[in-house]
Amino acid sequence: MQFHLEGFRPGDPAIAVPAEHAPATDGLPAEVDVLVVGCGPAGLTLAAQLSQFPDITTRIVEQKTGRLVLGQADGIACRTMEMFHAFGFSERVLKEAYWVNETTFWEPDPDQPGTIVRGRRIIDTEDGLSEFPHVILNQARVHDFLLDVMRQSPTRLEPDYACRVVDLAVDRSNDHPVTVTIERGGDPVEVMTVRARHVVGCDGARSAVRRLMGRTLDGDSANRAWGVMDVLAVTDFPDIRLKSTIHSTDEGNLLVIPREGGHLVRLYVELDELDEGERIRSRDLTSDHLVAAAQRILHPYELAVHEIAWWSVYEIGQRLCDRFDDVPDDDRDGLLPHVFIAGDACHTHSPKAGQGMNVSMRDTFNLGWKLAAVLRGQSPPELLHTYSTERHAVAQELIDFDREFARMFSAPPRAAASDGDARGDGGQEPGDGVDPADFQRYFVKKGRFTAGTETHYAPSAITAAAPAQHLARGFVVGMRFHSAPVVRLADAKPVHLGHVVEADGRWRVIVFADDQDPTGPTSGIPTLCDFLAHDPLSPVLRATPAGSDPDAVIDVRAVFQQGHRELALDRMPPFLLPRKGRYGLQDYEKMFCPDPAADVFDLRDIDRGGCIVVVRPDQHVATVLALDDHAGLTAFFADVLLDAA
Amino acid sequence: MQFHLEGFRPGDPAIAVPAEHAPATDGLPAEVDVLVVGCGPAGLTLAAQLSQFPDITTRIVEQKTGRLVLGQADGIACRTMEMFHAFGFSERVLKEAYWVNETTFWEPDPDQPGTIVRGRRIIDTEDGLSEFPHVILNQARVHDFLLDVMRQSPTRLEPDYACRVVDLAVDRSNDHPVTVTIERGGDPVEVMTVRARHVVGCDGARSAVRRLMGRTLDGDSANRAWGVMDVLAVTDFPDIRLKSTIHSTDEGNLLVIPREGGHLVRLYVELDELDEGERIRSRDLTSDHLVAAAQRILHPYELAVHEIAWWSVYEIGQRLCDRFDDVPDDDRDGLLPHVFIAGDACHTHSPKAGQGMNVSMRDTFNLGWKLAAVLRGQSPPELLHTYSTERHAVAQELIDFDREFARMFSAPPRAAASDGDARGDGGQEPGDGVDPADFQRYFVKKGRFTAGTETHYAPSAITAAAPAQHLARGFVVGMRFHSAPVVRLADAKPVHLGHVVEADGRWRVIVFADDQDPTGPTSGIPTLCDFLAHDPLSPVLRATPAGSDPDAVIDVRAVFQQGHRELALDRMPPFLLPRKGRYGLQDYEKMFCPDPAADVFDLRDIDRGGCIVVVRPDQHVATVLALDDHAGLTAFFADVLLDAA
Repeated sequence: MQFHLEGFRPGDPAIAVPAEHAPATDGLPAEVDVLVVGCGPAGLTLAAQLSQFPDITTRIVEQKTGRLVLGQADGIACRTMEMFHAFGFSERVLKEAYWVNETTFWEPDPDQPGTIVRGRRIIDTEDGLSEFPHVILNQARVHDFLLDVMRQSPTRLEPDYACRVVDLAVDRSNDHPVTVTIERGGDPVEVMTVRARHVVGCDGARSAVRRLMGRTLDGDSANRAWGVMDVLAVTDFPDIRLKSTIHSTDEGNLLVIPREGGHLVRLYVELDELDEGERIRSRDLTSDHLVAAAQRILHPYELAVHEIAWWSVYEIGQRLCDRFDDVPDDDRDGLLPHVFIAGDACHTHSPKAGQGMNVSMRDTFNLGWKLAAVLRGQSPPELLHTYSTERHAVAQELIDFDREFARMFSAPPRAAASDGDARGDGGQEPGDGVDPADFQRYFVKKGRFTAGTETHYAPSAITAAAPAQHLARGFVVGMRFHSAPVVRLADAKPVHLGHVVEADGRWRVIVFADDQDPTGPTSGIPTLCDFLAHDPLSPVLRATPAGSDPDAVIDVRAVFQQGHRELALDRMPPFLLPRKGRYGLQDYEKMFCPDPAADVFDLRDIDRGGCIVVVRPDQHVATVLALDDHAGLTAFFADVLLDAA
Repeated sequence: MQFHLEGFRPGDPAIAVPAEHAPATDGLPAEVDVLVVGCGPAGLTLAAQLSQFPDITTRIVEQKTGRLVLGQADGIACRTMEMFHAFGFSERVLKEAYWVNETTFWEPDPDQPGTIVRGRRIIDTEDGLSEFPHVILNQARVHDFLLDVMRQSPTRLEPDYACRVVDLAVDRSNDHPVTVTIERGGDPVEVMTVRARHVVGCDGARSAVRRLMGRTLDGDSANRAWGVMDVLAVTDFPDIRLKSTIHSTDEGNLLVIPREGGHLVRLYVELDELDEGERIRSRDLTSDHLVAAAQRILHPYELAVHEIAWWSVYEIGQRLCDRFDDVPDDDRDGLLPHVFIAGDACHTHSPKAGQGMNVSMRDTFNLGWKLAAVLRGQSPPELLHTYSTERHAVAQELIDFDREFARMFSAPPRAAASDGDARGDGGQEPGDGVDPADFQRYFVKKGRFTAGTETHYAPSAITAAAPAQHLARGFVVGMRFHSAPVVRLADAKPVHLGHVVEADGRWRVIVFADDQDPTGPTSGIPTLCDFLAHDPLSPVLRATPAGSDPDAVIDVRAVFQQGHRELALDRMPPFLLPRKGRYGLQDYEKMFCPDPAADVFDLRDIDRGGCIVVVRPDQHVATVLALDDHAGLTAFFADVLLDAA
């Protein structure tokens, strides 16, 4: 954490100085830059991101009357933890959450029909995939952390609750093209009109914004019913504190997700297959049904449920919206997007792979910095087209994965299926059975996907084709910057290199030095720094507004090959010790050296001749360039950053 | 973190359920159990500890009108971080603080007189000494964290500010023996009387409590003057982000302590030697003097100070009170202590070794659980005698260390001294000079002492003579329990074993198993568990009140030698899966296995035949027993825990 730059300030440094000219946060103004609809994970992530910019007027409305306290999603993938770190609250989640360290697979005991036995036991997340674990925590707490980020931001953003979007109209000739009609609950109900430059519908599977922009969720019918419950229970099932999948011979399937606090556990219980067009609500299921089903599946183990904190029944279906913005399909190049949808508003699927909350938050982590860059005049508005393109592809992959995962999870164990229609569920063909070993292999194979680290954005202006990719094979263009341990030169602190990418809307240029003395004439470092600091073609000079800190738009960091005791800080290029703030204090956190125990050059397969890795504000690798490719750097940023005013 | 035991509860689990019958916290009641005087580190640590117990009425008064915002101490030793973890806020400190990773030593450049050159550069804390680093953070933030612990406790304790203790009288015939007269600031000033069972003076070097109990601080006169300032500055001194000691030839000495936030730095500047009886305040020094002195010492490096957040001048002296409670020296066995002093009220010394705040907090971490145990009827009141005994010895060591450290720090480099009285300070004998290499060696040698991990309490009822010490050489009786990584059996989570010792007043019995199958007849584990769970001589049975959780007073944990995948949780002794709370939920966090990368049995030299390590509520090892020494366990607790009601 860096603070006190503008003078010593007592108190909690996480609480930003309130912006002097920040718009008042009480009540909805007539005009806003961005109106976020919905206080779920997607909406709050977007609001948390935008709240960092006092020059953007953001509001977030939610039709519920207050914050969520309970239930719903709970899985937090490694990649999401990396994002939480960028927002500054990963340590709170690490402390409070359940850590998914291992997963076990239970299957019918071939020797004792009607009972289950542990099959494989695997490490949940492969070593080195992320510096963060896969964890489980009540969605309500994730909301709380994001609300704290908003509350502590310079704009002190708070949601407007009890606000329902009832109409939406776009007039692109207007400076604030989107007119939104909102009903605020109360007596009497108040009808308000807000005009926005951009509206983002994060309002869930029944999204009003999606409906009002004329888009639909298309996909499978949902004929597989599941129940979920968070319980405090006593059991002799030994893996109740491990994530466990349980396939029984005849009683269906169960997923055990241990929860935070050491006692709570979530159980996903498979229910009957539904008839065509039937909805699970029509069956009048109670939590007693769920408990009884779980008890049957767990046999011979006992389960005594003492409290049900939350429960629900639902159908599984995979549905997707074909575009996540309001640009007509046939006019992509002419019109700019002004209305967006994110999260469940554009993709729904089963919850059991723990993806929903994660993909939703990462939708708006993708969108947030783009909206900010365009609204702040840093980037051309065409940047906004990349949101739907990039995130639709991710959603499509998720839907495809989930369809297969849900099919394999719900299929009876093959041994059972070969006995015929033992479950009495009518539609089951013997051939539908899945060998538990196949399911386990699929689970392992998809580990990187479910961890969220496989997302790979297609080439575009912001994920450039990289002829120099071979210089840093571990930083794949389009994928998230895979952090690695390093040692900070100035204070010898072991840190994670990826943690320099905070959720502040800035681009990062991470320079991996060649093996020469970086203060000498044979190194590419002095010439690169000279170019960045002084050349009219320097993207840093070009994109940084006058009077701003030199790293306000592009934050340049350097990683050397020498040990941190081998370099002389006072002979490094001044560009890497930039002067900032009203006093012109030096920033000592731009230079790093390898961790002796795990050299980043080896870990990420970086060429010893050095290279330049450009990282987007959402932590994805934008391009890889040769160390001396100054022109390449100029060219890359020419397309994504405008000249500063 | 464990929570939801008594039912699901939404919101932040760190905020305890308010105690139903907790005394009102507004205003000072006429009678309290404990009155803490002074909101410094010692007082707040004690209040944070006592606030956890709703059955104890605690109040803390402070003569200042509000919380500290700035200045004073900043060093946080590894051992103190371990204590912070017990209070649940170590991660906040880790995030915000400066980490002291390396220390450099600068000395006169023999080749260029009048300039300085870097001598040694060392790792600040030896590897493996603690799982926590040595860090630096503004004392005010430490106060904030402790205030949060109080605020979130079941008693919701808040300080009473603007309250000055003006009189104190002890009448041991009374149930609340100490009568304290307090003036509360305001218009008009309000005079109040509070009767307390115990009063603890944490009111600093000029302690009113100490004076009113008739004790004095005795020690050296303070004829060495220093200045300290927290500055935002620009410099080309390359080690400004490393802890550095600088000895100049003729200009005196400087200590550089980088501070949190990446920009702030603390400078301790040596000033002139004082005349006999002279006080530094009389010299009318300004911060300009300090800056000028620092600039001279740093030559040839430049230092431009842009803001001075805080500064002070002071004399160094080592002073100690000969007893930390109100028991007369000649009547130790007859009378029980009712008034205590802690922190600067009983020991003062130089700040440069970063010990003051640490030792003060550890004073009251030692006292807090003892007061709680006596007031709650768990332990005999004679336990309170151990506070002064144990902490006086620590303070004496500190004084001795500091005297030597300050002497070596302030002495001129020997090369300079041999030139005669070059500094013009009159009293300097040439022979007083110290070879910089000797100072550096002393610094390294004393690393464990300054880290706070060397504290070794003398034998007593609560640090028993341990004939079985050889069974666990790494857990030295009287020293703090040195944590080590382990894997939790039930959920395969990598955790630190020492972190089971939270600041909750409970004793821990950590059972290191033998190498047999712990579920089989040849292991000592089933018999030990059977003894603890059922034998009338079991200290757990004897000390635990009826209706309490089985681990409410003594928390038993087991560490096995087998890997966590090799043991069957459901066949472990039920005593190690205790049923707790209103639902009788199982506690799955009692059993651990070695971390494959660092086996605790090897790390701490634990006999493969197993043993029992008893740990005090303040994390110090109380005794080590053979695994089958059930009688030893009975005997140990017979002296320290009373029969439960």
